[in-house]
Amino acid sequence: MTKPVTIDFIFDFASPNAYLSWKVLPELLARTGACVNVIPCLLGGIFKATNNAAPMVTFGDVKGKLAYEGLETRRFIARHGLTAYRMNPHFPVNTLTIARAFVAAGRMGVSEAYMEVVLAAMWEQGEKMDDPEVVRRVLDAGGLNGEALLAATQDPEVKAGLVANTEAAVARGAFGIPTFFVGDEMFFGKERLGQVEDEVRRQSAAA
Amino acid sequence: MTKPVTIDFIFDFASPNAYLSWKVLPELLARTGACVNVIPCLLGGIFKATNNAAPMVTFGDVKGKLAYEGLETRRFIARHGLTAYRMNPHFPVNTLTIARAFVAAGRMGVSEAYMEVVLAAMWEQGEKMDDPEVVRRVLDAGGLNGEALLAATQDPEVKAGLVANTEAAVARGAFGIPTFFVGDEMFFGKERLGQVEDEVRRQSAAA
Repeated sequence: MTKPVTIDFIFDFASPNAYLSWKVLPELLARTGACVNVIPCLLGGIFKATNNAAPMVTFGDVKGKLAYEGLETRRFIARHGLTAYRMNPHFPVNTLTIARAFVAAGRMGVSEAYMEVVLAAMWEQGEKMDDPEVVRRVLDAGGLNGEALLAATQDPEVKAGLVANTEAAVARGAFGIPTFFVGDEMFFGKERLGQVEDEVRRQSAAA
Repeated sequence: MTKPVTIDFIFDFASPNAYLSWKVLPELLARTGACVNVIPCLLGGIFKATNNAAPMVTFGDVKGKLAYEGLETRRFIARHGLTAYRMNPHFPVNTLTIARAFVAAGRMGVSEAYMEVVLAAMWEQGEKMDDPEVVRRVLDAGGLNGEALLAATQDPEVKAGLVANTEAAVARGAFGIPTFFVGDEMFFGKERLGQVEDEVRRQSAAA
């Protein structure tokens, strides 16, 4: 019996491409037998540490570039049938609170449910997820304990956990999200999921 | 009998990714029955018209980004066995003269031979292809008429042809190179050749 290959997913709710990648990962995992380890990070922290910025900032003045990025998003959605996706009307959303609460959810053993509820709120339902009252309502409606999760965002260990995850991602080479690590091999962007799958198969065969 | 689908390749010798894409296109064409129409453009002109810049400029200060681009280049080379590729030691090379001469080569009916000789000089042999004497030597050694091709770069119609190609590419939505058009569908970057192939098959089936 071989040990399954694990994909580390450097993740933040802030990134629509993280949502889109997450939605197609289950098929990749089913095809390959790989596992995924979602690592909550703060995209703003990665940008600050690497001097990077969102495409809308970097390419805001480049004729045609953001229109093309939008076209590639629509193509990805069409190819994978991700019809629930909606651009968040409050974009860009400050994700500090929901990223910290994701770390807390991991410590409480509810990270999977938390991730599904918050991803849907951000990228399907258009909720303003930098407003704590909205977050509380969304979490409660999703069967989670909004009060406890929001309180935990002030826990120094939770705050430090998010910082540590973010710093570790940058130390491994990440400069944006979604980033995937298969062992030491890094892949950036939803366009590279095919390469992620190839690398999983390569490492599976070598195990 | 269906009409073969044509891929318009917005091209300049300045782009290593244009070289790398060109080297894998023959397999794509053989698999699909498509044709390719290489359109000589000036990457610097596209950048100026769209306010874009080379990755080494845009991402020069972003920690890890250019290292990752280099990794993706090495992966592409390994995957396709493109062992002849060498980064040009004079990079970035001003390609105005060799782009104009490419337009002239088309008018003289020698564009295929010209493209192979100049691509090899730029991305395999490390020649300084913004030096007219080097260009002349390379073309002559490749069995082309260096004297005539260099003289033609001063022909107003050749100059205007390169400008017109570049402006038309920008008008269609291009902001960089390599860019591929399959009908009205635009794809940017060597990472998208899989999508180019999918679109060729879609249009072939619909024809």
